[in-house]
Amino acid sequence: MARTDPCLPDEVRGLTVGKPLNAAILLIHCNDQRGIVHAVTDFILEHNGNILQLDQHVDPGQKHFFMRVAWTLDGFLLRAEQIDAAFRDTVGERFGMQWCLEFSIEVPRMAMFVSKQSHCFFDILARYESGEWRVEIPLIISNHEDLRPAAERLGIDYYHIPITPEHKHEQEARQLELLDKYSIDFIALARYMQILSDDFVRHYPQRIINIHHSFLPAFAGARPYHAAFERGVKIIGATSHYVTADLDAGPIIEQDVVRVNHEHSVDDLVRKGRDLEKVVFARAIWNHINHNILVYQNRTYIFD
Amino acid sequence: MARTDPCLPDEVRGLTVGKPLNAAILLIHCNDQRGIVHAVTDFILEHNGNILQLDQHVDPGQKHFFMRVAWTLDGFLLRAEQIDAAFRDTVGERFGMQWCLEFSIEVPRMAMFVSKQSHCFFDILARYESGEWRVEIPLIISNHEDLRPAAERLGIDYYHIPITPEHKHEQEARQLELLDKYSIDFIALARYMQILSDDFVRHYPQRIINIHHSFLPAFAGARPYHAAFERGVKIIGATSHYVTADLDAGPIIEQDVVRVNHEHSVDDLVRKGRDLEKVVFARAIWNHINHNILVYQNRTYIFD
Amino acid sequence: MARTDPCLPDEVRGLTVGKPLNAAILLIHCNDQRGIVHAVTDFILEHNGNILQLDQHVDPGQKHFFMRVAWTLDGFLLRAEQIDAAFRDTVGERFGMQWCLEFSIEVPRMAMFVSKQSHCFFDILARYESGEWRVEIPLIISNHEDLRPAAERLGIDYYHIPITPEHKHEQEARQLELLDKYSIDFIALARYMQILSDDFVRHYPQRIINIHHSFLPAFAGARPYHAAFERGVKIIGATSHYVTADLDAGPIIEQDVVRVNHEHSVDDLVRKGRDLEKVVFARAIWNHINHNILVYQNRTYIFD
Amino acid sequence: MARTDPCLPDEVRGLTVGKPLNAAILLIHCNDQRGIVHAVTDFILEHNGNILQLDQHVDPGQKHFFMRVAWTLDGFLLRAEQIDAAFRDTVGERFGMQWCLEFSIEVPRMAMFVSKQSHCFFDILARYESGEWRVEIPLIISNHEDLRPAAERLGIDYYHIPITPEHKHEQEARQLELLDKYSIDFIALARYMQILSDDFVRHYPQRIINIHHSFLPAFAGARPYHAAFERGVKIIGATSHYVTADLDAGPIIEQDVVRVNHEHSVDDLVRKGRDLEKVVFARAIWNHINHNILVYQNRTYIFD
Repeated sequence: MARTDPCLPDEVRGLTVGKPLNAAILLIHCNDQRGIVHAVTDFILEHNGNILQLDQHVDPGQKHFFMRVAWTLDGFLLRAEQIDAAFRDTVGERFGMQWCLEFSIEVPRMAMFVSKQSHCFFDILARYESGEWRVEIPLIISNHEDLRPAAERLGIDYYHIPITPEHKHEQEARQLELLDKYSIDFIALARYMQILSDDFVRHYPQRIINIHHSFLPAFAGARPYHAAFERGVKIIGATSHYVTADLDAGPIIEQDVVRVNHEHSVDDLVRKGRDLEKVVFARAIWNHINHNILVYQNRTYIFD
Repeated sequence: MARTDPCLPDEVRGLTVGKPLNAAILLIHCNDQRGIVHAVTDFILEHNGNILQLDQHVDPGQKHFFMRVAWTLDGFLLRAEQIDAAFRDTVGERFGMQWCLEFSIEVPRMAMFVSKQSHCFFDILARYESGEWRVEIPLIISNHEDLRPAAERLGIDYYHIPITPEHKHEQEARQLELLDKYSIDFIALARYMQILSDDFVRHYPQRIINIHHSFLPAFAGARPYHAAFERGVKIIGATSHYVTADLDAGPIIEQDVVRVNHEHSVDDLVRKGRDLEKVVFARAIWNHINHNILVYQNRTYIFD
Repeated sequence: MARTDPCLPDEVRGLTVGKPLNAAILLIHCNDQRGIVHAVTDFILEHNGNILQLDQHVDPGQKHFFMRVAWTLDGFLLRAEQIDAAFRDTVGERFGMQWCLEFSIEVPRMAMFVSKQSHCFFDILARYESGEWRVEIPLIISNHEDLRPAAERLGIDYYHIPITPEHKHEQEARQLELLDKYSIDFIALARYMQILSDDFVRHYPQRIINIHHSFLPAFAGARPYHAAFERGVKIIGATSHYVTADLDAGPIIEQDVVRVNHEHSVDDLVRKGRDLEKVVFARAIWNHINHNILVYQNRTYIFD
Repeated sequence: MARTDPCLPDEVRGLTVGKPLNAAILLIHCNDQRGIVHAVTDFILEHNGNILQLDQHVDPGQKHFFMRVAWTLDGFLLRAEQIDAAFRDTVGERFGMQWCLEFSIEVPRMAMFVSKQSHCFFDILARYESGEWRVEIPLIISNHEDLRPAAERLGIDYYHIPITPEHKHEQEARQLELLDKYSIDFIALARYMQILSDDFVRHYPQRIINIHHSFLPAFAGARPYHAAFERGVKIIGATSHYVTADLDAGPIIEQDVVRVNHEHSVDDLVRKGRDLEKVVFARAIWNHINHNILVYQNRTYIFD
């Protein structure tokens, strides 16, 4: 975002939601064992950390342990770049953990993939422009030109990369190059309407967020509102999930629904669904940005 | 229900929700044409009827017309038994309608089919005992003995008809005999857990109401809560529908949902789902009892 | 909206949701009497109208009748400007009706009043820019300069009219002048944060729509999220209503809610509430634009 | 409950949800300080406990710490009756905690207070009879005789204690005597419709659960459905809360809502509200029975 854009007052854009905490966030999972919470809190305490949030969950069926813990780095005795190794040596390896260390002051960089439908696109731009999210959006990629003006007026680079069956591979290569060049952390598919290749998806595991316009697993695939109308459901939904190689089958991050009745045409479902998609997608992205999500065996564990 | 049961005070049971209106209810559908509402209201007016409720809907895609109209019979110039023929001659045939005429003072007779799960069963009995619904429940059929005491203490006849693959046909014949003997108008499958044969279903078209413990069409078939847990959905649902020859694919009458998260085990989904099933099933039955439902091409049109 | 703005492709903005029907819409209410529906449908039929939608409601307590009926004007035997008088002479006066006649091809003109909070403002602009609503927004008035750039880039005139206690009267006079000059039909208070004088409100009866950030009548007045947090509610809400002389007490058009729990701070309530406000406000405006709303004795009757 | 009642099969009643865990549950709150989670987990670990669940929350505004932790007593080195003192000596006093120690194998004893309305009463009896809750209900008190038969057929003692203004004090004394005699742990006011005196409430702090038929704080006091109808709300609610000296102002445990519209009469609100009250009340009682609730400064912290 062009922070020096003289047209926009400071309050209208940018990251104005107050100086963020300087905190470390650990997302952990491992087999359930005695003493995990104690060991993790011991690690933080002995280096003079102050716990801001701690949430843990044990899946009793799988006997698997999940945890999110956040603590302030003000006064912490380890420097940020030392924490990961120290944690590995004293806690992580001992319990056979998989973990992910994040820092609240780092601003994630998001790319948006769009097509012609604009509702999720505009909704995200508005949140961006008003500084609602701690995120940078330096890059938008689309298979159409339509949404370029709205992107460019916020100073976001917009690339038109049409997708055809015969050139899909090379176009995806170009997309990957751009994602790399712009140091993108994760991708939001804002009604992109194209299926990404398995190869593409492998580059961004649990880092591509899609919004599907149905209550998954009902009505996966194309034209879900038409299918919902045909089936005569009394409630429609939207689902945001991480993209995996299986279409519309990745780990679900967020879902919500709205009631409909026989008076609603397919167009009405589309209209009502748009508002649902916007808010479901935004909640999923917000949880991703805030490092609230763990994924294990195609399910999400969300500590919000 | 044993109305003379001396143990129950009048206010606790029976049909105590006030003297019902003496009204006629017409449910109509036909191809959309000019003048339908006018013709129907003309029919009612010219016989001195006073319209209590009128709701119509045109499906613009199918160009099909749906209507529910109710009027008082106090002062109406036709006797109840004359209305159907008079309507046919002056309105019904002219517009090629299909219609259904009901009278609010008639109390529908419902049979309940149950198995071992008791939550929907108890919920319906409580509504029955407190007089919440205008319905008679003279008959309960089960493939187990478990719920007999609770049925019999309300004076409801309870038949234990176990279902085995080899005797299914003759047992269904016995069920049909009982339904006939008790003059049953419609059947509520209160978690009956048995699949009815196509032949059985044909005897009660749009008169068998099922409660399925998922948000259909997601998780049709067996063990939907386990499937929902596996898929990691963030919302679970329940669906009440008319039973047709296609399993869990009949016209949906009512659905509702409740949020879940990663902390909920399958047992938690079952627990939360029970309350959902009860209320979704009850709403569906209530709409059926009140003659609010039209079915056309596997969709319901509910004028509530 | 600057329809000739060369920067915006046609599909991204403007009124692109298909050619609208050329329909007349009548909103009617009166004392309940025999024959109203018949008389109204007779009026439409005899002038060769084809009814698109008809919905009526009788409040049994007040014995008051409400109706919305829409019919195509293609082939109708009266010209648009003749309909009102003809209806009055043949139906309206006979039943002592109050009614309102609207035409679907007329595009309502909306003014937005804003302050510094941008979420409802951006949400409405996105709907406007994408052509989701049949509405013109020629005018935005604010007591701050902050949102001017976003308004002006869509070609909407933006007036900065600061409100101070001593100049409120003359500033409102200036606002009224602008509303008149721009031929404004109705006003959307998109988190305007100023209380309009009774005199101002009288100029736009049932034509000023507010969004209040609580589930009214709970937490009327200032700082509702703080009050909701203090009270420890488990659900927060938003309410859109017509503005009357009584603060936050006008007829409610739409409400919705979202669950919260003890983990949510006031900031979290504000964040979750923003998304709620946007969608509740948008649904209310949509119903107003589509002439779906009748108001009677401080209650709305919404035929959507 | 008459466990030896020969009429009821085992599966239909009683505590049949599987052998419960033999666990200890600690509910803790205190000023936020460094090292609390570490100290609590240290206490459990050093006595060989295995943590089943741990959930903590810090209110950043009040800098107050809340926690629920549960661990198995199988193999725990302290006997149940030693735990409280040991915890006090090593952890509780050091951090200035207030805490509450519960044991999962103890079955809470609940009294129900009822009047004439039966829906919450029947709903609770059905959960009781089917063994859905780990609770004993040995005592029902009512100011009317109406619901006696349904109580007595489950073997629950039913006392008719009419309340009149002049005898309220002595009647409450009799109620307190009964509660004591039956060793009651907490009271569920299942639409009891009487206001308890401050003196009575003081005997059962955070141990009297009420269901109020509105979305509090809206429509506190009498006839909330009538008030909701008058105000024209689009959503109605129900609220379950602990009873305090201030009417309808105690800490809220659970709330839920359902949409209504202009077609719904007050009777419809009452009908829809009944189902809402049942489920909201049941969720609140379930959380109380499972020791999930902390109360601090008139807010609940629910670890479910």
